Order: sequence, then C-alpha cells, then structure tokens
Amino acid sequence: MRTDAALPQRPATASSRLLEDVGRPRKNTIEHLERPGSVRINVQGAFIVDEDGASPPRAGSPARYGQDTKDIRLPHHKAEVSHMAVDIGGSLAKLVYFSRDPNGEGGKLNFKNFETERIDDLIDYMDRLVHGERDKSSRTQPLYVMATGGGAYKYFDRIQEKLGVQIYREDEMECLIVGLDFFLTEIPEEVFTYTEEDPMHFTDARTDIYPYLLVNIGSGVSMVKVSGPQKFERVGGSSLGGGTLWGLLSLLTPAKTFDEMLGMAEKGDNTNVDMLVGDIYGGGYEKIGLKATTIASSFGKVFKKQTEAWHQPESSLENGTSSTEVDKASQFAPEDISRSLLYMVSNNIGQIAYLLAEQHGLEHVYFGGSFIRGHHQTMHTLSFGMRYWSKGTKKAYFLRHEGYLGAVGAFLRHQPRNWGRRNSFGESTAVPWNRSGAIGGTVGV
Amino acid sequence: MRTDAALPQRPATASSRLLEDVGRPRKNTIEHLERPGSVRINVQGAFIVDEDGASPPRAGSPARYGQDTKDIRLPHHKAEVSHMAVDIGGSLAKLVYFSRDPNGEGGKLNFKNFETERIDDLIDYMDRLVHGERDKSSRTQPLYVMATGGGAYKYFDRIQEKLGVQIYREDEMECLIVGLDFFLTEIPEEVFTYTEEDPMHFTDARTDIYPYLLVNIGSGVSMVKVSGPQKFERVGGSSLGGGTLWGLLSLLTPAKTFDEMLGMAEKGDNTNVDMLVGDIYGGGYEKIGLKATTIASSFGKVFKKQTEAWHQPESSLENGTSSTEVDKASQFAPEDISRSLLYMVSNNIGQIAYLLAEQHGLEHVYFGGSFIRGHHQTMHTLSFGMRYWSKGTKKAYFLRHEGYLGAVGAFLRHQPRNWGRRNSFGESTAVPWNRSGAIGGTVGV
Repeated sequence: MRTDAALPQRPATASSRLLEDVGRPRKNTIEHLERPGSVRINVQGAFIVDEDGASPPRAGSPARYGQDTKDIRLPHHKAEVSHMAVDIGGSLAKLVYFSRDPNGEGGKLNFKNFETERIDDLIDYMDRLVHGERDKSSRTQPLYVMATGGGAYKYFDRIQEKLGVQIYREDEMECLIVGLDFFLTEIPEEVFTYTEEDPMHFTDARTDIYPYLLVNIGSGVSMVKVSGPQKFERVGGSSLGGGTLWGLLSLLTPAKTFDEMLGMAEKGDNTNVDMLVGDIYGGGYEKIGLKATTIASSFGKVFKKQTEAWHQPESSLENGTSSTEVDKASQFAPEDISRSLLYMVSNNIGQIAYLLAEQHGLEHVYFGGSFIRGHHQTMHTLSFGMRYWSKGTKKAYFLRHEGYLGAVGAFLRHQPRNWGRRNSFGESTAVPWNRSGAIGGTVGV
Repeated sequence: MRTDAALPQRPATASSRLLEDVGRPRKNTIEHLERPGSVRINVQGAFIVDEDGASPPRAGSPARYGQDTKDIRLPHHKAEVSHMAVDIGGSLAKLVYFSRDPNGEGGKLNFKNFETERIDDLIDYMDRLVHGERDKSSRTQPLYVMATGGGAYKYFDRIQEKLGVQIYREDEMECLIVGLDFFLTEIPEEVFTYTEEDPMHFTDARTDIYPYLLVNIGSGVSMVKVSGPQKFERVGGSSLGGGTLWGLLSLLTPAKTFDEMLGMAEKGDNTNVDMLVGDIYGGGYEKIGLKATTIASSFGKVFKKQTEAWHQPESSLENGTSSTEVDKASQFAPEDISRSLLYMVSNNIGQIAYLLAEQHGLEHVYFGGSFIRGHHQTMHTLSFGMRYWSKGTKKAYFLRHEGYLGAVGAFLRHQPRNWGRRNSFGESTAVPWNRSGAIGGTVGV
C-alpha cells in the first residue's frame, strides 16, 4: 500500500470540543476556523429539491432510476464554501459541491456523478468549478478538493496536476459513515422504507441511530457495523455487487447503460431462465418451507435449454450462422436475463446482509452505494429478503442520496470538527479495524 | 404440494430395535425381513475401487473431475439385493445399484449419473437392470426402485409405466442425511479435507458426528443443520449454485459440458474480468483487511472494458460484423470468464456456509452434491473461504461420492430399520422442519 507521507495532510483543527449539541433550529452561524475554506454549513430548513427546483418534494413521489440525484437546498446558508468533494469508486465517481443561489438567498448542495472510466470528464468539470466563473467575484479563498474512494489514490496526481489546487484525501469508510450519519439525522425525507403499497415511506429522523449495519453496494459490496460515531468495523462483504450485474448484463444483453439494463429487467420474466422449486418438484416442498415459486437455481434452466438446442438437428444452420450463435442470441430474452441477474445479485446481498445483521445483533440495515438507483424491483427484493429471513425483525432502509454517502462525508470532513451531526465525526484517530470480512474472500491469485 | 396418499407406502418394519452397535468387523449377516427385497448390506471390508478395480486406492491420489465416481466393493456381501435407488435432481439424476461379482465373491455398489434432461437414458438403463440379464438366473424376487429428489415426483408415472415395477418414494432431505451419515461412518477413505499440499487428506471415521452442517450443492444450494439421526433443519441455502455456473458458462463460453467448463477455468486468469482491490485503490486497503489481490467485484472490469470498446471508432466494423458481436466474442477469454464465475459461485457458497455454521455453532461443514466433481480450484476456494472467514476454527470436508448422498440414502432406506450406521436412520417420523431458509429467498413472481 502506498504511504501518504509525502501528501498534504489535513491539519488538526484547533477546537477539541466534541458532541456539541447543534439541534435544529440552529443559529445561522458563519465561522471561519484556522483552516482555509472551513465553514459551518447551515442546514436550517434544508430540503431536497423537487422537479420545480424550489419547493420541498411531494411526499410519496418515488425517485426513479435514470434521474439525477436531487440537489439539497440550503436556504439559510450564506457563507462562502471553498471546497468540493469527490468520491472516486471503481465504476462511478461522485461529486458534491456547493453553489450560491443566483438571487443571493442561500444556496444548494449539488450532486453529480461520472463514470470512473471517463475520469477526464470529471476532472474537466471540476476544473470549470475551480477556475470557471462560479462565485469568482465573491471568492476570497482558493477552492480545495476533498477526495475519497480508491480513485483518490489512483488519480491523485492527475487531478492535482490539472486543477493545481490542494487535494485532501479522506479515508473512504470514515467518509461513508460520516455521510450516512448526516443524511440520517439532518436531511428530512431522505431515508425511507419500501413496500409495494408505499414505495417511499419516509422515516422520522432518529436521534439514537446506533448501532446499525451499512450495506454499501458499489462495484462490490462492503458491510460495515457502526456502533457509534467513528466506531465501526467492516464485518463482511461480497464480490457480487453492481460491477457483477452491469458486467454480466453488458455481455449478455444489448443494453449499454445501467438504466437501459434496469429498464429491461422491469419487463422481463425470470422464470424463463431461473429454475424454480416447482420446476424440480412439480410443486412446493412445504416440508422445508420452499414454495413452488421460490428460485431454486438462478439461471438453472439455461444449461438444459442450451443442451436441448445443441442436440437439435442442424436446422438452425439454415440462415448461415452457427447454431451456437443462434441459440445464444435467440433462446433467452435479454429482459428475462436482466431480471434474473437483478434478482440473483439483490437476493444474495439481502441474504448476506441479514446473516451479518443477525450475527451482530443489528436491527437497522441501511443500503447505500450507487447500485439501487431508485429501482423498485431492487428495493423490493432487498426489503422482501430482509423481512423474510429475519421473520420481520429487521428492516431495510434506503436513501435518496444513496450513492453520495462517501462524497458527502468527504465534503463534511472539511469542516470545523464540531460542526454538523452532533457526534458523527470529529476525532481523526480511527478505531482499529478488524480484518474479518474481506470482500468475497481472498482467492488464490 | 402433491399428496402421496395414492402411492405405495413403505410398510413399517417389524423391528423396533434402534442404536444397535454394528461395529466393524461385523457378522456376515444375511437376513430377509418382511419386506420384499429387504436385506442387510454387509459392509465389512468395504473399499472404494481404484483404477484396477480390485485394490483399495492409493492414499493421496485425488479424484479428478471427468471421471465417473468410483464404485464401492463389498467383498463380503452375499445376499441378493432386490432394489436400486435413484435421486433425480434438477440437473443430474444419480443411480445406485448393487451387482454381484461375476466370480461369486461379494459384489459392489455401482454409481452412475445421467443428465436429468435425458431422463429416458436413465429409464432405459434402469429398464435393462430390471429386465435385463443381470443376476436374472439367481433372482428370486422382483427388483424394486427407491426414488428421491424432485424428479421422483415429476417422472414417477413415466418411470413406473416403463419399468412396471414398484417405486417407493423417499423424502429428499432425509435421504441426503442418511447417505451422508453412511459415508461418514462406514466407508474408509471417503471423507477428506483439501489443501494444495495435500489435496486429498482422508479423515478418520468419527463415531460422534453430530452436529454438522451439510452444504448440498446441486443446481441450487441447500444448507442443512444436522444435530442427530433424523434431527435436521434446512437453515439456509442459495440460488447461486451449479445451475448458475453451468447456465452462465453455457451462454458465455463455447464449452458444452461441465468438464469442458472446469477445464477452461483451470487455464483462465480471473483478474482480466474481476476487479481487484488493487484495481480500485492502487494497492491494498489494509486498514480494513483487504489485500490488493482480493476480488472486490466479480466481473467488475467487464462493463468498463465493454464501454471502452463501444466508444471506440468504428474500426471494428470493417469485417462486417457489428462491434457488439466483436467485443463480446473477442474481448474476454472464455477461460478467464470460467475462472471468474467458478470463484464467484464457490466464494459465495463458502461465505454463506461459514455464516450459517457460525450462526448455529457448527464446526464441521460437509460439502455434498454434484457441483464439485473433484475439481481442485473449487475445493481450494471453498476450503480457503472456510478457513479465512472462520479464522481457522471451521473446516470444509469433501466426499468422493459427493453427488450420491441422496441416492445412497434412498438405497439404504430400503433396509431393515436397524441396519447400517448405528442410529442414522430408522424412525420414519420426520422431525418438524423449520421454514427458515428458503433457497435464495422467495421472490416476487
């Protein structure tokens, strides 16, 4: 692992106060501490921007995949903000920055994501924020960049060279937790549970949020037990995550974007590729609690059907293509494949999350990361799994800014230590991490 | 679920003796009870037949995938056996039958499998056993068929119609456990642990085998906690099993048989398709125990590479095929895909097995079912995962007749109740089953 010794380090803040109770409504404080750009973000009256960009959202209107994550209006924030934050993951890079309202009344937090593959688009965008027109007239301090995620290491030089500004790196897991704690406690109508009848049931802000399990689904999956502010441990994970779903779908379907893939999954019928309990037993196997409709084997019908096709006479060769190509192209609808894979990955994550929540005695399970994208089938599967396996004792919670936990956490780390969620961050000494739970298990490579 | 009311029921045996200590060497007993065909199988001196068909195997010579499962010689068994047993699963049907030694000295248990898709091959084979020449001269009773697995229901009429013999159906889970208990306690050099240095380290027969976790990997995966003879509960499972691996590989590679697929996996390099921790962080993330070589996301590199290819200029169109076809055909080696999928499925099963073993306090985890096929990478991944996650407290055990637990169990159910493993079966009253743990979680179909 690289050493950070030669890199700019965040100076310790002077204040050692912790746990200051910053309950709402809070004072519209503007405070510059010793660190350039540090500022208290005023979250009084903060709300998630609805379509018209000005009013709080209609309750119950679900976010749809394919939409950009909504910005958060901060109507009472007046101080200059001299930093932006970026979380560069394996597949997506997420950017959070503040912009003033053109009318001078507060401003908003902007959320934007880029494919990590096109990192230069992100850097160009950041470059325009740093050197462009935004707030140039009023800015008294240079803009800084807070960076987290694996790409904060991988692309550090490239970003710094292009932007020519100071970049502060923050630990990814710490940022995730700080960001989640912020959303859980400070942003109304952010956290919700899903049922078919009420697909976005907002939960009340909790004051006593610990302990909980964070299931962060990006390219892979990390599962983190959080038992207090900055007290957390990666207890498990899985290599079957978003990268698996998008990767397999990009090979097996003509879809080229996540949202095309999710759109196909909505139309598909997984029972054309999955082997159900009923396909094996001719009915349920109630004695052990297996209903006929339970998926016994994901993709379990495919090999059989392929074998049948291979054993067919050569009639499929008539049109000049090989039988294999024909079979693969025609036998399974990409919609069915998409739905099957979506169920497979979501079910599996839900099951491992349940088992870890059970092992560690956690009732609240929050799903973060860029995987869910407001997609109903995904949330349905995760919610259903959690209820089913736990016999109703555990619940799946979702976030409207699910993909931005790390970026927001990094954004907030560039703050006076006693700002924000009462006790969700501050001490920069990390708790020792337990090694249990490498993603997907190390393999013999 | 179908009712069995109209089907032939196995009569209760007269003997109510249980737990009779039948320690080796045991008497060469020949005993006919009230049920036609019932017989004590004499396992004295039983051994697994090596290549030359006569001698016990060389210690340490690993089974190779692609080989048929070795038969078990019963040199001292002399009685007539009037039944065979079949376990018809979602993908494979497994047949077990006894044949006399042509020289008159004992006989052997034969193991044979068929693709369930080609069920008629199985039925033809059974037909030859029932009506063919085998032992015809000496048989005094008609041959019976014991059947278990989902296909015992699905194909019941078809088998009975063709063979015209009595078919007794047995509960699948009960058979699995009876079969496993038999192998654990009665057959030398059957159970082994795997390490690279010692790929088939036989374990001593245990007298006190309970409790343990059976992980049965067929098309899907069932995980069964066994706490005593006939005291068991399906505590979990996964829809990601053999069917998933073979199904996806049949779509993504040119291989047409399981063994071709496993052969490709041996040659592949999964790091061409999997995203490793090092690909994200540029190194390890030791703080949370993730090495650079840990798989962060199975297939996590594929979407990126596909996207790159899609964004290429149209040069790939020169040869007249669409760029999508070219990319999909050429960009990823089928060997790499095979290895990635094998790791993905095996890692995932190992992790869930570990979590369930942990939850239920079980140290011994036995892997059965037709998935492993003696394949070293598969056993390596499962063994490694079990050691890694449990920090060495739990062990993965494998069986040379892994695919035949259910079939052997069904074979043995057709026995006087007090035969065989002291207390592994007998009472036909099943313990109530807990509903927890449907395969892969029921989904909203």
